[in-house]
Amino acid sequence: MRVSWQATLEGGARMVDILHKVGVEAPSPDRVYDALSTIDGLAGWWTTDTRGRSSVDGVIKFTFDSGFVDMKVLELQPGKRVLWLAVDGPEEWVGTKISFDLKQDGDYATVLFKHQGWREPTEFMHHCSTKWAAFLMSLKSLVETGKGAPHPNDIHVINSKH
Amino acid sequence: MRVSWQATLEGGARMVDILHKVGVEAPSPDRVYDALSTIDGLAGWWTTDTRGRSSVDGVIKFTFDSGFVDMKVLELQPGKRVLWLAVDGPEEWVGTKISFDLKQDGDYATVLFKHQGWREPTEFMHHCSTKWAAFLMSLKSLVETGKGAPHPNDIHVINSKH
Repeated sequence: MRVSWQATLEGGARMVDILHKVGVEAPSPDRVYDALSTIDGLAGWWTTDTRGRSSVDGVIKFTFDSGFVDMKVLELQPGKRVLWLAVDGPEEWVGTKISFDLKQDGDYATVLFKHQGWREPTEFMHHCSTKWAAFLMSLKSLVETGKGAPHPNDIHVINSKH
Repeated sequence: MRVSWQATLEGGARMVDILHKVGVEAPSPDRVYDALSTIDGLAGWWTTDTRGRSSVDGVIKFTFDSGFVDMKVLELQPGKRVLWLAVDGPEEWVGTKISFDLKQDGDYATVLFKHQGWREPTEFMHHCSTKWAAFLMSLKSLVETGKGAPHPNDIHVINSKH
């Protein structure tokens, strides 16, 4: 019995999530929510090649030069929360969940971001964490200025391609 | 016995680290290492107000408008690794460790960053994760172009001050 607990414990202790927070200058979270819940909005900050159905139970396909990811929309709470499940794409992503929780803090709409369910803190996970920060800055820019930096015009953090 | 294992397990499962990875265009990790292991280097990408002793067992004080953090240097492996322990500053940081592991990938010096030992995935931790990404981009810029974006000229991710 102790062995199985220990194994579970070690698995648990290794588990890590990607967390981020950005503040978007806006009178309410509504425009941020639009950018997270519509195909046009998503194409404005993550990847220009965004297709599919963005309603609950729909699947959105996000395509990049290096591959794609399919997200099933699990929850949509207008102005408050968006939750996706990665159902196809990079092996390490499949089965992970991505959430965006919104709230208003004075003149800023705050986005609390979580990409959870990673099985191992691999080097790819480190990379994705930094890229998510860059894309969330792109989301902020989109809502504040009308112009984001979605792929293929994204900020590269590793080399000239990624 | 089972209760105590369970408690430990839950603590373990909740534990999260901040992870990032950046690639810096450079023929070797040497200049990245300099930017992580000297007072002048650190002042070029994290905060201009960086003082103290950057050798092993020394304490470096990093000061920002909003406060400061004191880092004890635990490890210095030239061209390979820098490890700090936060010994004073924000309560949530004290006792956490920050590591930078360097390696060469072709034309890029890769930095694997980890800020570990957070007790809870608080909102402040989400904020610090995004800010670390911005500061690591500043480190990349410093080595590649000679100009970083240290505090007080850092990229704001939350509002006009943070």
